[in-house]
Amino acid sequence: MPILNKDMTLCISLAARPSNLGTRFHNFLYDELALNFVYKAFAPIALAQAVAGVRGLGIRGCAVSMPFKEEVIALVDDMDASASAINSVNTIVNDNGHLTAYNTDYTAVQLLLAQHAVPAGLSVLLRGSGGMAKAVAAALHDAGFTDGTIVARNETTGRALADLYGFGWAPEVGELQAGLIVNVTPVGMSGGAEAHEVSFPAATVAAATWVLDVVASPSETPLIRAARAAGKPVITGAEVAAVQAEEQFVLYTGVRPTAEQVRRASEFSRA
Amino acid sequence: MPILNKDMTLCISLAARPSNLGTRFHNFLYDELALNFVYKAFAPIALAQAVAGVRGLGIRGCAVSMPFKEEVIALVDDMDASASAINSVNTIVNDNGHLTAYNTDYTAVQLLLAQHAVPAGLSVLLRGSGGMAKAVAAALHDAGFTDGTIVARNETTGRALADLYGFGWAPEVGELQAGLIVNVTPVGMSGGAEAHEVSFPAATVAAATWVLDVVASPSETPLIRAARAAGKPVITGAEVAAVQAEEQFVLYTGVRPTAEQVRRASEFSRA
Repeated sequence: MPILNKDMTLCISLAARPSNLGTRFHNFLYDELALNFVYKAFAPIALAQAVAGVRGLGIRGCAVSMPFKEEVIALVDDMDASASAINSVNTIVNDNGHLTAYNTDYTAVQLLLAQHAVPAGLSVLLRGSGGMAKAVAAALHDAGFTDGTIVARNETTGRALADLYGFGWAPEVGELQAGLIVNVTPVGMSGGAEAHEVSFPAATVAAATWVLDVVASPSETPLIRAARAAGKPVITGAEVAAVQAEEQFVLYTGVRPTAEQVRRASEFSRA
Repeated sequence: MPILNKDMTLCISLAARPSNLGTRFHNFLYDELALNFVYKAFAPIALAQAVAGVRGLGIRGCAVSMPFKEEVIALVDDMDASASAINSVNTIVNDNGHLTAYNTDYTAVQLLLAQHAVPAGLSVLLRGSGGMAKAVAAALHDAGFTDGTIVARNETTGRALADLYGFGWAPEVGELQAGLIVNVTPVGMSGGAEAHEVSFPAATVAAATWVLDVVASPSETPLIRAARAAGKPVITGAEVAAVQAEEQFVLYTGVRPTAEQVRRASEFSRA
C-alpha cells in the first residue's frame, strides 16, 4: 500500500502518453533518500489548467513531455538558459508559485559528452528534427561540435534545425559518414514500427568513432548492439534518460543522489 | 515505498490545515479493494487555480474543507441536493471535466440518525454555527427534527443558522436541556485549547436521551465519555467522519466497501 501522508510534496509529469519511467525513478529515490515526496504521471486534459493546478496545489516539480514542450513556455514565469537556448521545456520548478522552466535533456547530453570526453573535433550525423533532436543538436553545438549534418526526411524541420546551429541538412543518411553518429528518431524503440531496425547503415556505423542513441527503451537498441559489436564506445538513451531525470531530481529536491543510487533508480525504473 | 504507477487515478483534499485522516482512510481502502487509485492532501495556494488543476489534471475526486466550502461553489458546474440544500460543499466529483459538488457531511448525519433510529420527536440543542453546524442542522431539520435550539456565542451566525431551519437561538447552554444534544464546536478536540472540556454542562448531559459529537479526534471526547458513563447512546465524530468518507469513496470509485472494511479503514486512519 502507498503509505502516503498529508505533508508529502508532489512532483508530476505532463505527457500525452505518460510512461512509467519517471514515476518509478523518482519514487525509488524519494524512498531511498527518505524524502517526503511522491511522484505521479498525468496525461493532462488541458495544459493551461494543469499548469494552473501546479501553482494552485503547490506542486513542486513538473516534467513536461510531448506534445507540450513549447506550448508550456507561455505559462511559466522564467526560462532557465537550458530551456531558452532551445525554446523547449522539459522541467518546471515551482518556488512558492514562481515557475522556472528548464531543459534537462539539453543539460544531460552536455554532461554525458563531457563525462565520456567525446572529442568536439568529431564530425556529427544526427538523425531527427523534433524537440529532442533540437535539445541534442544545441548541446552538441554548445559543446563545440561545429561540423554537423542533420538528417531528416522533413526538409522544413530538418533545414530549420540545421540552420539554427550552423549545421548542414540531408534527407537521408545514404553513404554519409561521421565521427559521431546520433539517433534521435524512434527507430529501434520497443513497440514501435521500426523496433528491430538499426537507425544507421552498417557502413556508417563501421566508420563512426562514437555512437549516441537517445532511444531509452530498450537500452540496448539495434544501433547500440551493432556499435558494441563493432567495438565502438556508446552513450545509450538509458544514460540520457537517467542523467536528465537525475538533474530534475536535484532541481526538485535540492538533493544530489550518488551515482550508485542513480544507477539503481534507473534499473528499477526500467524493470 | 509507494509503488505508484502512471495509470493511477488521483483523488485529493483541499484544506487550509489538512489532517491525515482522509489520506489514510482512502489509500487504505484503495489497497484493500485493489483499486488503482491514490489519495493526497493539499493545502492550496489559490483555490481557483487548484480547482482548475482538478479539471486540467483529470483529478477524479476532491474533498473540500475549511475555509473553502462556500467559496468553491462558484467554481463547480453542478450542485447535488446535498450541497445546494446548505450552500456548502465538502466533495467534488469530476466526470470528464464536469464538476459536481456534494456535501457528504450532511448525508452522513442523515444516514447515522436513521441507522441509530434517533427519534425525530426529540428536542435538539446544537452547539456551533459554522459550516459543519449548518450541515448537521440541515440534516436534523430534513430528518424531521423541528424543535431545535442553536447555541452560539456569535449572535449573527447563530441566529442566521437558527432562522434557516426554524430553530431558536441561545448565546449559551446554561440550564437548557434537550432530548438530543449535539456538539459542533472544537470543544474536546485533541490539541485544541479546550481539549479536556465537556462541551455541555453535566446537568444537560444527564437530562439528554441521545448525544452526538462531531469532534472526530479523539473519538472518545470528554462529552462522549461523559455520555457513555451516564449510559446514554452516542453517535461519535469518528462515525460521522467514517460515514462521510465512505460516501466520498463511493462517489469517487463507484465501489461500496463492506462495513467491516470501513471499520478497519477508519481505525487505520486514526492510528
